[in-house]
Amino acid sequence: MKTFFDCIPCFVRQALDAARRATDDEAIHEEVLRATLRACAEMDMCTSPPAMGYTIHRFVRDRVGGGDPYRAMKDESNRLALGLYPGLKARVDESPNPLETAVRLAIAGNIIDVAVKADVAEVNVDEAIDHALSCPFDADIGEFAAAVSQAGSILYLADNAGEIVFDRLLIERLPLERVTLGVRGAPVINDATRADAEAAGLTGLVDIIDSGIDVPGTVLDLCSDAFRRRFYDAGLIIAKGQGNYETLSEANQDIFFALKAKCPVIARDIGCAVGDLVLRRSNHVAAARGKGGQSAGV
Amino acid sequence: MKTFFDCIPCFVRQALDAARRATDDEAIHEEVLRATLRACAEMDMCTSPPAMGYTIHRFVRDRVGGGDPYRAMKDESNRLALGLYPGLKARVDESPNPLETAVRLAIAGNIIDVAVKADVAEVNVDEAIDHALSCPFDADIGEFAAAVSQAGSILYLADNAGEIVFDRLLIERLPLERVTLGVRGAPVINDATRADAEAAGLTGLVDIIDSGIDVPGTVLDLCSDAFRRRFYDAGLIIAKGQGNYETLSEANQDIFFALKAKCPVIARDIGCAVGDLVLRRSNHVAAARGKGGQSAGV
Repeated sequence: MKTFFDCIPCFVRQALDAARRATDDEAIHEEVLRATLRACAEMDMCTSPPAMGYTIHRFVRDRVGGGDPYRAMKDESNRLALGLYPGLKARVDESPNPLETAVRLAIAGNIIDVAVKADVAEVNVDEAIDHALSCPFDADIGEFAAAVSQAGSILYLADNAGEIVFDRLLIERLPLERVTLGVRGAPVINDATRADAEAAGLTGLVDIIDSGIDVPGTVLDLCSDAFRRRFYDAGLIIAKGQGNYETLSEANQDIFFALKAKCPVIARDIGCAVGDLVLRRSNHVAAARGKGGQSAGV
Repeated sequence: MKTFFDCIPCFVRQALDAARRATDDEAIHEEVLRATLRACAEMDMCTSPPAMGYTIHRFVRDRVGGGDPYRAMKDESNRLALGLYPGLKARVDESPNPLETAVRLAIAGNIIDVAVKADVAEVNVDEAIDHALSCPFDADIGEFAAAVSQAGSILYLADNAGEIVFDRLLIERLPLERVTLGVRGAPVINDATRADAEAAGLTGLVDIIDSGIDVPGTVLDLCSDAFRRRFYDAGLIIAKGQGNYETLSEANQDIFFALKAKCPVIARDIGCAVGDLVLRRSNHVAAARGKGGQSAGV
C-alpha cells in the first residue's frame, strides 16, 4: 500500500508520541518533530507507511541513544495477555469452530496494545474480547482452513508484543511442524521481536525467524536474505496487523491478512469499515484463482 | 500563545483540508502539503498558531489562484445563522439576564462553523444552542457588564462567518455608539471579513474596521496602522474565538476573551476543559487590578 496524504499528519503525531515515550527532554521532542517534518516533506509517496515509521523511530533512537524505549510497555502487554491466555485457550477449545475463534482472538489481540497505551482497566479488555468473538466477521474460514491444510510451509508474521500471545492461540491450531513465526529484527515501537516470541512461549513450539531489520512492517527489500528466502519459499503466509498489510498488500505471494482496520486510510484500501475484523486473502491469489495459481481451489 | 508541539500535526491536517476545499487537483494537495511540512520544520515556535494558519492559506491561494475558496461555505453559514437570528434575539430579550444569554449565544456561534462543515441538520444546531444556554459557564457577567459600561470605546473582534450573526446578538446589548467591530482584512479560511459584517446586518449598527491582513487571528505586527491605533486606543476589547485568543493572550490591553475551547492545547493554556464556554479577562488586567490599572474596579 502506498502512503496516502492522510497518513502524513498521522506520521507527525506518531513522531511526537514516540519521542515523548522515549524521553522527557523537550529539546529532543522538537528535534524529532523537525526531522520528521523534513523527511515527510521530501518523502516518496509510493513507499508504504511503515517505511516512514522506520525513519521516525530511527530519529528517536539516534537522539535518545541505545536501548528500547518501549521495552517496559511491551513487557506489560505480554504480562497482561499471558494472564488472559489460559481462559482464552479454553474458549477456543470449547468453541464450535475453534479455528474461527482463534482467528478472531488473534485479531482481537490488537486491543492489548490500545489497552496498555491508554491504561484501560482489564475489564474493558474482557469486553473488547467478547465483542471480537461475537461481532460480524466477513471471512471465509473454510477457504482459510483449506489453504492451511494444503500449504507445505506456513510463515506467520507477528505484529505487536502482547498481541503475539493471542497469536499463539491461532498458531496452536496450525500444523506446528510446518509453521515459522516471523518477528521484527530489532526493536521498533511496540512490535514483537524474538524476546516477545520467547515471552509468549512460542520459541519451543515453532521455528522463529526475524526480518533482520527494525521496520514496523515487512519491507522485503530491507529484510535479510534468510528472511526473504523463507518468505518466497512459504506456501502460505499469514500476516497480522496493519503494518504487515501496508507493506505486503501488493506482494506476489499467497497471503491471508488478519487485522483490525484501525484507520480510515487502511479501511478504504481494504474496502471495509473502520473497526472491522478482517481476514482477507491477497488480491494476487484471488485474481489467479481458476488459472492454476496457488489457490486452495475453493 | 506560543505554538505547542501538538499544534504541528494539526497544522499539517489543516493544510490538507484547506487544499482539498480549494481544489480537487491532487497535485496541488501534494504541493500544499509539502510546502506546509517544510514551513513547519523551520517555524519559530514562539509565534502563535494563526501565524502558521496564515502561511498555509497563502500556500493554498498561491496555487489555486485568486478568489476565496471558502466564500460559498461562509455564505451558507451566514444564511443558516440569519435564519436562527429572530428566534435567538427573542430568547435574549426575554431572558432574565439578557447580557449573559447574549454572551452564551455569541460563543455558541462557533457551532455554525462545525454544522456547515459536517453538513449537520439544523436540528442539531438547535440542540447545541440549547446546550450553550444551559451548560455551566464560569464567567463573571457582573464584571463584564461593569467593564462595558466604563469603557470609553469598545473594539469587538469577530471570528468566523455565520458566528458573526450570533455576535450581533451580543453587540446589540452593548452601547452601539462606542463599539467598533474588527474583521479580517482579506479572506482566510472561514473567518469573517467586511462582506460577512455586511451580511450579518452589522454595517449599519457599528463602525467596522478590518485588520488589514489575512491572518486568522490578530497578529498586531502584521495589522494596518489604523487597526493598531484603534486597538491600543480601545478602553475594552472583546475578542471572539480561538484565533484571537491565540494571538492576543499576552497583549497588554484590557481584553475579554469569549470562546469555546475546542482543542486540548488551548484548553490547557486557559486552564479549562475541552468544550467549555469561556469568558476570561486578560491576565494583564487581572494582575493589574487594585494597582490603578484599567480594571473595572471589582
